[in-house]
Amino acid sequence: MNVSDHFTIANIPYGIASTADHARGVVTRLGDVVVFLADLDLNTPSAIQSTLSQETLNGLAAVDKTELRHLRKEIQHVLSDESSLSKYGVPINEVQLHLPLQIGGFTDFSCSKEHLLNAGEAVMGQRTMPPAAPYLPIGYGGRSSSIVVSGTRITRPYGQYRDGEKIGFGPSRALDYELEVACVIGKPTQLGDRIAVSDADEHIFGLVLLNDWSARDIQGFEMSPLGPMNGKSFGTTISPWVVTLEALEPFATQPPPKDTPAQPYLMDQKKDSSYNISLKAEVLVDGGATAVCNAQLSWMYWTFRDLVAQQTINGCNVKTGDILATGTVSGVGDDEHGCLLEMTKGGKVGWKLANGKDRVYLEDGDGVRTSGYAGNGVGFGDCVGIIAPARPF
Amino acid sequence: MNVSDHFTIANIPYGIASTADHARGVVTRLGDVVVFLADLDLNTPSAIQSTLSQETLNGLAAVDKTELRHLRKEIQHVLSDESSLSKYGVPINEVQLHLPLQIGGFTDFSCSKEHLLNAGEAVMGQRTMPPAAPYLPIGYGGRSSSIVVSGTRITRPYGQYRDGEKIGFGPSRALDYELEVACVIGKPTQLGDRIAVSDADEHIFGLVLLNDWSARDIQGFEMSPLGPMNGKSFGTTISPWVVTLEALEPFATQPPPKDTPAQPYLMDQKKDSSYNISLKAEVLVDGGATAVCNAQLSWMYWTFRDLVAQQTINGCNVKTGDILATGTVSGVGDDEHGCLLEMTKGGKVGWKLANGKDRVYLEDGDGVRTSGYAGNGVGFGDCVGIIAPARPF
Repeated sequence: MNVSDHFTIANIPYGIASTADHARGVVTRLGDVVVFLADLDLNTPSAIQSTLSQETLNGLAAVDKTELRHLRKEIQHVLSDESSLSKYGVPINEVQLHLPLQIGGFTDFSCSKEHLLNAGEAVMGQRTMPPAAPYLPIGYGGRSSSIVVSGTRITRPYGQYRDGEKIGFGPSRALDYELEVACVIGKPTQLGDRIAVSDADEHIFGLVLLNDWSARDIQGFEMSPLGPMNGKSFGTTISPWVVTLEALEPFATQPPPKDTPAQPYLMDQKKDSSYNISLKAEVLVDGGATAVCNAQLSWMYWTFRDLVAQQTINGCNVKTGDILATGTVSGVGDDEHGCLLEMTKGGKVGWKLANGKDRVYLEDGDGVRTSGYAGNGVGFGDCVGIIAPARPF
Repeated sequence: MNVSDHFTIANIPYGIASTADHARGVVTRLGDVVVFLADLDLNTPSAIQSTLSQETLNGLAAVDKTELRHLRKEIQHVLSDESSLSKYGVPINEVQLHLPLQIGGFTDFSCSKEHLLNAGEAVMGQRTMPPAAPYLPIGYGGRSSSIVVSGTRITRPYGQYRDGEKIGFGPSRALDYELEVACVIGKPTQLGDRIAVSDADEHIFGLVLLNDWSARDIQGFEMSPLGPMNGKSFGTTISPWVVTLEALEPFATQPPPKDTPAQPYLMDQKKDSSYNISLKAEVLVDGGATAVCNAQLSWMYWTFRDLVAQQTINGCNVKTGDILATGTVSGVGDDEHGCLLEMTKGGKVGWKLANGKDRVYLEDGDGVRTSGYAGNGVGFGDCVGIIAPARPF
């Protein structure tokens, strides 16, 4: 499937783009064409119209969902007219796509039971769940400053790590990707407010693909007891396109049943509270792609609605543009490991690229491409990053 | 000592205030008087002058240090004239002080060896250091959305916690404060850049007091292995005044010697890389104050310069307004515990307020006031928060 097939009239994702002639603004994509929404003659209130000329999606994302649903229909109506599309469409290869959001808060959760078990086995040799994981989505505060848009090179980080009996320092020797999806907060809350799991969708603008690049050696050394930091904060890639919950609604599905009864604030009465989204990760080397993971978002034990409820149950406020991510999306199969830590059992088991070359973790020049597709012309396109060598001192 | 004695002409801290007649803008404080800096006739470039009318300190903080040093001298010159002060000064009780910064990134480190040992003893019964702590300042990604200015009420959070053999859910039963100081990033970096420890001061706009409110029961349950999250993210209080490094320069002093040789990137050639700042924490109940901690910033094993180097050694970028905090500042003595977790040995040992009442952790209506004073009329004033009861569902 071509990436352009992810972007039909049924999708209408939002992004931020510019061209030589066009200042940054809100765009959507149809096939291989991008449309600057401020160019269109849309029947929409001026307050919403003005958000379409902003340099991030934050203004648009903060708009009330009822208005957003109307805007989406209006865009679909206008762009269904072939003449509009030919008049306003800009070929995708003529635009530069930018980081679509100003992101203040980034929480990375751990929603996949299989990832927790596989990672536990890889790191500690035991398939045991962290103590709180059966009861709530555990997570950590990610670094928002270093979130970049797909296509941005990721520089191999320096850091300290265990090196046998000694402590080493240098470029990471265990660079990994993590296949993730994140939700983008639209409607914000005030400090002290809680968002009920039943109301969460009203606060979610849409979803993006996310690759939480991880230096496993740096992370492994630093993370007890305060969690990962420098092993993660050197870069996180998101897709340029935010796919709205409205576009994903036809793909709503049930999450797995709970093994352990959840507290009421995590008991979602909505049956189809997850989404069928097929996710894929490929490692790109020498012009060839090697599939390393195929997984389904619907395998996640906790849903985005759960994450919003968990983030705010203590009164923590959310701001427009904040993102809440799933953590590594994994399944039970050998081709369903959403990161190399799992696939290589913590770096102990090598694997082969399609071209026959050996790999354990990522090498300089390697790329990782993740993608997500819901169905019927609704997808996320690609989320790509290529590893640049560590910068010498 | 009166708080007003913290604010002499030798200080000139920056904050954000408004009055009934005056829109939000950059202010400084002298004694009990606040001055809106945009009102003054300062000999300063227009680009800098314009930052004085902004609603946060971010514009000013991003200004080059050489220019900032000039601005500081110019303000001191103008305000040394009593007639300026009487013309432009507004009584402190007539202004509202606001959160002074737009904060994107908040990293909370753990710089106190004594805190790590005391907390380890309180939680696990062992005075052992986390594995990486002798080698680098460990830390976690804090939540920036819920950072509030001194005086804002802090609502007791709900959450899940261990309750004997069961998992409980409800308002935290172990609400704590943490006595901390944080540095504010001025000059930003690009992703991939490292800040050498020797250059760190050029990126630090100044320091603030910080209280990292902590729900120990929620934190204790959630934090393995990803670190603290909901046990912290319900609120963090900072002082309204950012005290510049220039004001603190006379109080520069040596940090403790390293027990373990540091990697070169954490070997600071500057001898006096820390500051003599006397810190105090008091619990406020029924109009009375009970001192619970007296500590010195100079006891910290890692300095702010170290924190900036550690944050960026992996290429993580910093943005203007980001804050990097010390974590709990503690010493070896019984009156030098910078949080109640330490003082109560994890909630097992009660203590008495000055009025004779018993306490373990904080109760509803209790306040915590932290303060910091360097000397010679240079201090931070107070940083206060009062616990509001949990909001019922």
